[in-house]
Order: sequence, then C-alpha cells, then structure tokens
Amino acid sequence: MYISESFIPILKNNPSEAKIKSHQLMLRVGMIKQSSSGIYSWLPLGLKVMKKIEQIVREEQNKIGAQEILMPTIQSSEIWKESGRYEDYGEEMLRIKDRQNREMLYGPTNEELVTDIFRSSVKSYKSLPQLLYHIQWKFRDEIRPRFGIMRCREFFMKDAYSFDINDEEALFSYNKFFLSYLKTFKRLDLVAIPMAADTGPIGGNLSHEFIILADTGESKIYTDKRIFEVNSDGSKLDKKSLNNLRNKFEKFYSVTDEKFNKEEFEKKVIKENRLITKGIEVGHIFYFGDKYSKPMNCSVDLPEGKKDFVKMGSYGIGVSRLVGAIIEAKYNETEEIMKWPISVSPYDISIIPIVNKNDKSTLEKAKRINTELEKNNIESLIDDTDENFSSKIKKMNLIGIPFQIIIGKQIDDDFIEFKELGKNSKKVKLSEIIKIIKKQKEKN
Amino acid sequence: MYISESFIPILKNNPSEAKIKSHQLMLRVGMIKQSSSGIYSWLPLGLKVMKKIEQIVREEQNKIGAQEILMPTIQSSEIWKESGRYEDYGEEMLRIKDRQNREMLYGPTNEELVTDIFRSSVKSYKSLPQLLYHIQWKFRDEIRPRFGIMRCREFFMKDAYSFDINDEEALFSYNKFFLSYLKTFKRLDLVAIPMAADTGPIGGNLSHEFIILADTGESKIYTDKRIFEVNSDGSKLDKKSLNNLRNKFEKFYSVTDEKFNKEEFEKKVIKENRLITKGIEVGHIFYFGDKYSKPMNCSVDLPEGKKDFVKMGSYGIGVSRLVGAIIEAKYNETEEIMKWPISVSPYDISIIPIVNKNDKSTLEKAKRINTELEKNNIESLIDDTDENFSSKIKKMNLIGIPFQIIIGKQIDDDFIEFKELGKNSKKVKLSEIIKIIKKQKEKN
Repeated sequence: MYISESFIPILKNNPSEAKIKSHQLMLRVGMIKQSSSGIYSWLPLGLKVMKKIEQIVREEQNKIGAQEILMPTIQSSEIWKESGRYEDYGEEMLRIKDRQNREMLYGPTNEELVTDIFRSSVKSYKSLPQLLYHIQWKFRDEIRPRFGIMRCREFFMKDAYSFDINDEEALFSYNKFFLSYLKTFKRLDLVAIPMAADTGPIGGNLSHEFIILADTGESKIYTDKRIFEVNSDGSKLDKKSLNNLRNKFEKFYSVTDEKFNKEEFEKKVIKENRLITKGIEVGHIFYFGDKYSKPMNCSVDLPEGKKDFVKMGSYGIGVSRLVGAIIEAKYNETEEIMKWPISVSPYDISIIPIVNKNDKSTLEKAKRINTELEKNNIESLIDDTDENFSSKIKKMNLIGIPFQIIIGKQIDDDFIEFKELGKNSKKVKLSEIIKIIKKQKEKN
Repeated sequence: MYISESFIPILKNNPSEAKIKSHQLMLRVGMIKQSSSGIYSWLPLGLKVMKKIEQIVREEQNKIGAQEILMPTIQSSEIWKESGRYEDYGEEMLRIKDRQNREMLYGPTNEELVTDIFRSSVKSYKSLPQLLYHIQWKFRDEIRPRFGIMRCREFFMKDAYSFDINDEEALFSYNKFFLSYLKTFKRLDLVAIPMAADTGPIGGNLSHEFIILADTGESKIYTDKRIFEVNSDGSKLDKKSLNNLRNKFEKFYSVTDEKFNKEEFEKKVIKENRLITKGIEVGHIFYFGDKYSKPMNCSVDLPEGKKDFVKMGSYGIGVSRLVGAIIEAKYNETEEIMKWPISVSPYDISIIPIVNKNDKSTLEKAKRINTELEKNNIESLIDDTDENFSSKIKKMNLIGIPFQIIIGKQIDDDFIEFKELGKNSKKVKLSEIIKIIKKQKEKN
C-alpha cells in the first residue's frame, strides 16, 4: 500500500483531548476517529490491527473446541426479566423502545441470550460439554467514557459460554479457557497475569481477571512478583495438566483490589516480593454454576433419567481494548516510537524511499522490492510522499511497523538498508530480509 | 467436525412459522435462531456460510482499491440533522436516548457518518479518489419483519462510499463497483442482473439494483431476457472498459417496478424477449453527487485553488440476506436437497459412515479419511451418530454440503463411494476426491 493512496490521516501533534498514550497515538496516526462521546470509527490502520487480534482470539478459541456463533446486538428485555437482571443492571444498559413500544436493549453481555439459545436446542447430557463463543459489538452506557477505546461505550468483545453436566466438568471447561487465554495473550506478545477477581454483576464465586501491567491501568493489583515467571509451557487439554497449571499460578498471591486482604497479602508474600501496582484488564473469566440456567429453566436429561440445570461459565476478552492495551505496553512516548508485535502489526514492513521530484529511481526500487515481498506474502506500507526523510522516519516510528527498509540516494542493488525498530540498521540482501520476516511471522 | 460434538440443532420437520424456503431451511438445519421479532442469532452452520460470503465480498472490494474501515452501530442524531434526513427517515430508524438524554440512533445506513469522517481527514484533491467500505450490523425497524433473515430488523451489510473530484471521476468509481458486484455474485454462483432502479431515501439520479430471480423475491422486475447472457468477462479497471461493460448491460431494457414504463418496455423489447417476474435485491449502488457533501460542507481544495464539494456514491451488499438468497436459488424443496456453492459451503465435504454399535470400523475409516482431508485443507463434517442410514442422508441433503463420502459396511481400502449432490455416486480413490475438491475450491 502506498501512503499517497491510503486513508491514514496523520496529525502533526498529539491531540490535546487524549490523556493516555494509547489514545494519543491512535488519534495521531489515524487509527480511530471519535464519532460521538465514547463511540469510535475504526480507520484502516486501526481496523487492520483489531482484525488481526480478532483472528488470533478466534483461533485460540477454536483450538479448545469452542464453536463460533453470533448473537445480535439488540436483545429483548424479556430474557433479562427472566434472569432477574433487567432492573439490577442499572443505567449502563442502553435501553431502547422500538416502534411497537417493546422494551429492547443493546446487549452489554450475553448470558441470558446464550442460555435461551441453549435451552431451546439441547436436551440431553449426551450433547455436553458445549463451548460457544461469539465476537460482537457491545454497548455499555458509561457515565464518563474516557481513554479512547479503553473505556468507551461501544466496544468489540469476544465472549464465550460453557455448558456442562456438573461442577467437575464445568471446572474443566473453565480451565480450558484459562489456558486458552494465556496462549492468546502470549501470541499478542503481552504478559497477562491471571488474578483472583470479584465477579460483579455477572455473578458466581470463581473468577480470574487477566491483567497486563500499565501505569494507566484502572485496575489496582496486589501480587507476588514471582508470578511473572510462571507460564503455560507444556500444558495440555486434559484435566490433570490444566489443574497443575492453575495451581502453578495460584501458588502466588495475586488479586485485584476488590479481593485484597492486607493481612493475607503480608502473610503470604515476603516484603521484597510484594508488588502493588496498576494494570489493564484484558480478559475476565467466571464460573457461576446455575445462576442463569436455574431461573431460565435451562436443564438437560441426566444419564440416570433425572433432569438438572446445566452448569455455566462465561469468558470475555476485550478485542478492541487490546489494541489500546498493546500500545500502552509497547509505545515509548518519550522517543515517539511504537513497535507492534509482528502478529498484529498493520503491515509487516515499511519501505521508506527518499523521494526526489526529478528522480524516480528510489521509488522504482521501492516498487521492485514490494513486488518481491508480495510474492512472499509480506505486506508493506510504502511512503511514496515527497516529505523530507526525517519526517518520514518520524511518521513510520509512530505507525509502529516493526521492520523498515530505507532507500537512500545511493542505490545498491544487492544490499539494502534494513532496520528492526529499536535496533541498529544493517545492510542485507533482500532474500535475507524475507527470511527474517517469514521466520518472525511463523513463530506465531 | 463430528456431528455428535457440534452445535447443529436440527428440526425433524419444517417449522410452521416459516413461509419461504430459505427461512424454512435455515431454521430446520439450525443455521439461525430467532431471538425476537426480526432479530436472529447465527448458529455455527449459518455463521460459517455468512463469514465465507463476507470474505468474498471483502476480497472483491479490496481488488478495486477500496479500503476497509469500521463505523460504529450507534450514531449521534447531530449529523443526520445536518444532512436533513433525521426527520425524513421515519419510523424505520431506531431512535435511542442515552443516559444523558442525548438523541442517538442505530445506523440504518452510513452516508452521514462517512462524510463526517472524510471531511475531517481529507483536504485536497490530491488524496482523491478514495473508496471506503465497511461490513457492519445495521438496524431498520421494519413494521412487519418477515421471511427470516431476508427482511429482518438487524442485518449484516457491506456498504462502500466513493469520494471524487468531479462527475467523470465519480462515474469511474461507480463503474468500478458495478464490475466488482458482478464478480462478487459470480463467485457466489449467483446470476445477479443490474437493473435501473429508484434511489429512494438515499437520493441521487443514477442507481442500479442487482437482482437474482426468485419467485419469493419482493422486487418486481421487467426485463429483456437476453440480458442474462451478458457477462463481465474481460472487463478491466479502466474507464473505457468499464463504460463498455455498462453499455453491454444497458443495451437491454431492465428495470425494477418503480422505474417501469409500459410503453417503453413494449417498444424496446419484442414480445418473446419480455420477462416480467420477481427477484431478490442483493446489492444496490447509487450515485448522488453532492447530496451529502454540500449540506455537510465536505469540500476539497481543487488544483486551481478553488474549493468544491466532493462527489459521492454509495454501494451496498446485503451480506446476511445473501445467505437466504443463495438458498432461494439453490434449494430444491420438493426433493429436500440443498446444494451450497463450494465457495460458501459450511464444509467442503460430508462423511457419512453407517455406524453400528458393536463395530467401530466404519467410524475409524471416517477418521482416517478426515485426517487425510485435513492435511489438504479440506474441511469435513462427519456424521458419527448411530441414526439409520436414510435419515443421515436426508439430514446431509438438507445441510447441503456439495460433496459426500459414504462408508457402508463393506469397507474397500482403495475405492471410496463419492457423490456430488444431484449426481450419481461413484467409487474413486481418496487422492482423486482430494483432487476434485481442490480444483473446485481453486476456481474461486
């Protein structure tokens, strides 16, 4: 893609309305545009990143056997009255009357709707377990939307729901998602730590938030530093392995502030390992048994002939929020250098020729390189504008594509100036560049 | 995917509430589930088809240089007041008040919002043309939702918008979409004919509806039969070639009923070529010049220093409706046989073993075949239930996967019973089956 033909509206300066770096950067390089309070349009650069995140989330859901469905954004109030949450939910729920004066709402979450789908479709324990997920727009009418897409009103989310015959199987499902989330965030090059969390309006008594550290985060966390060394390597999709994984993490004290207990913290964590800091919630999983299945009468036939309410959990990942979370983790705002993980970068590489009005040779060289890259499924963004070199570099550093090819006045047909952001540039052959990028992409 | 693990809730009989065959079939094989009047959830089988259609639509938009963005579902009323459509639009617009009592709405279309994005981002003719599209949920509060997802309230749509410096360039953009649409529908194995159409609430004076023939369609059409022989073969993305393409179609009288003129029809079309029938609108394109850019003050600097309002067009494809439209075109409801085009079929092939409780050999054979198919990126749906053979066949005929492998009691390791729906079965080697399916998929 040539910048001159692209729709990437770049701002010269940081927009004054943005208070945190992800919001600043996203407006600055034209990833999003606010359309009204807490509601954003996604422009090509931002959408490309979000779509890649969405696809990684999807693949990791599929790997644990979850099946994708898609529930609508607008729901009837009836099912919320069945579950008892219609009145409870408060003003964050966007309530709507349609032309027939029926009470509708824009779904802030989908426990009721998925339970309704399930109860009308599944009758027997033989069809269990079932893991269903969807990736859809949601709306929460925040009183004070802020921080761009980090706390907005209309947001894009993956939510999954598990249906099991009893607690033991349900916890197995819960642990599958636990592993799936660790793998998802790892592919996004994020260190997200599962922390015991409050269940809030979703309900239940078991819950983990997945949190990445960030000063701008809105979650306060209390944790044992050593938890950052735990990982999911070697975990498998069987009950024992997943239990071990949970235990490995839960050995270390790690909670959000609603769950914080000073005495316990100080008893379990020696002083030098204590970490009290802030983080961003990027995922949240819940086990709530029959909280919805019971009032909504969602039961299955058991082997011995009786019936029982299915045991359910729900599992959310903020897909749009992750775009901001990755920026919070990867953007050096002092140097104005962003570096996307290759797995979600809007392009794989940028090509930056010095363009002279009377001499098209650098542009032609860029074109030849691009053709070669395309053959290898490497997507590049080419700055074909005639801006001066330093502003081109500045712009590309903000856009954050992790690799750059720089084409100066002296064209060398064999060796190309190649740079990974944050490292020194070097002269290498194009074939070598292709190899490096392919290898990086394959890792994912 | 094994049917026993899948979420494909099949109904024994046609649901009585469904009046047309696409609605019947979609409920029958569990592609969708109604959640409230005119609002549906998409279950795995239906979603897989819709996602494949979405991807084909996306690829064909990218091929003409359109860039993908994503506008939100909820819009502010402000921009609609600017364009003057807020009062005009009537009760089909779902109007919402948020907790701050601001007037919002669920977007029924996006001319205003995209104009707002454009005017704040693009200032010079040098950045033109721009073609922007998005694929998003929309809402129209139909007074009588009917025919399942064919005329529902919440629906999934691709809409694109073109921005040009003058009429000539704008018509070039219009014609690019004209070609893109023909190619899109062809990949869906549909014969969609462009017909001169009324512009309705979108406005402007040039418009085509793309219509496929179907008795259950809601568009009445008047056409010269010979138009069905015109195609886009050989057309290129240059002005002359695209003009020729438009002319090839426009040589034949072909209009929807709002544009119908009896005298003209009878003068231009000899009796034997006249076709008066019904069809389903699957796409609609509009050119409306400065209808929105003028009231919304969306202008660019011209080469000679003056300013002018950009010239815009808009281009819609009903992505969710296409799922139903393909069923209307491909489902033989008398024989209860559906046959999806391979390009959008939920699976590439079905495997139907006769399963005996005491003998797992056919299931094992199915598993071996599936492993081999997976290696070749061929996705299969395996009926591992112990239902009798004829009900398995009946079920698979309704699901409509175009190819079947049947594993009977006599297992032959070399030759496999293979059937393309609607044709006779034959005994062939697995390698041959793989070759056939790969070839079919590559065509797309």
